[in-house]
Amino acid sequence: MTESKPYSLSVKAVILDDSGRCLLLRRAGGSTHFPGCWEWPGGKLDPGESFSAGLEREVLEECGLNLELTGLAGAMEFDMPRARVVALCMEARAGGGALRLSDEHEDAAWVSLSRLKKHKLPGPQRAFMLDYAARKSTTS
Amino acid sequence: MTESKPYSLSVKAVILDDSGRCLLLRRAGGSTHFPGCWEWPGGKLDPGESFSAGLEREVLEECGLNLELTGLAGAMEFDMPRARVVALCMEARAGGGALRLSDEHEDAAWVSLSRLKKHKLPGPQRAFMLDYAARKSTTS
Repeated sequence: MTESKPYSLSVKAVILDDSGRCLLLRRAGGSTHFPGCWEWPGGKLDPGESFSAGLEREVLEECGLNLELTGLAGAMEFDMPRARVVALCMEARAGGGALRLSDEHEDAAWVSLSRLKKHKLPGPQRAFMLDYAARKSTTS
Repeated sequence: MTESKPYSLSVKAVILDDSGRCLLLRRAGGSTHFPGCWEWPGGKLDPGESFSAGLEREVLEECGLNLELTGLAGAMEFDMPRARVVALCMEARAGGGALRLSDEHEDAAWVSLSRLKKHKLPGPQRAFMLDYAARKSTTS
């Protein structure tokens, strides 16, 4: 009964370095959802926050980096217990700051897109992440 | 210099009927942008508004229909004079109401996805709209 769940918007950043690797954060082992899985940083918007400001805030909170948005990576949707989540994924560069994790994550790694599939990814996001990696490797 | 423009989020609805046709609205001839072009309804969010509430409001304002969101159609980005627009496109059904246009549009039509390409579409949205139609026709 996905129809009866409210939609919720999340934002995620595919932060790419000069070698085309993306930043993955490993969710803490005690996380309610997807413990130990590697994910792109991001999260929900605060009320009244624009999607770009919310994404910049989330990334700064989660990994200490300032963000320069460079384009759209795409969008995915997946079910969570209380909502149907639509996640808007933006490509970005790190514009300063130093990598520093919050309690939400326990590791970070710059991973080439071709090696994304070797990581344990959040189940409902895996297909989109690998599809993005495949699209990106054929166009760059 | 697209980098220097702020990002702006828009939402659009691909309203499908039981025959798989989508609702297109024709922009008024006096529109500043894309006069006479056929587009999916939608628009910008009001401050503080969730993307689903904003989309429902825009569709009700633009064509008098109540909306039932059914899934993600995808996302596109394009340049406008003052912003880099990211448009989140949701598939939907009409959940009641009667088709009634605002001043913003001068015509409406239910168009099969295979005939989308025969309509004058907004230039920066055309590729995404036709790609959506192609994807949809191979999966449904």
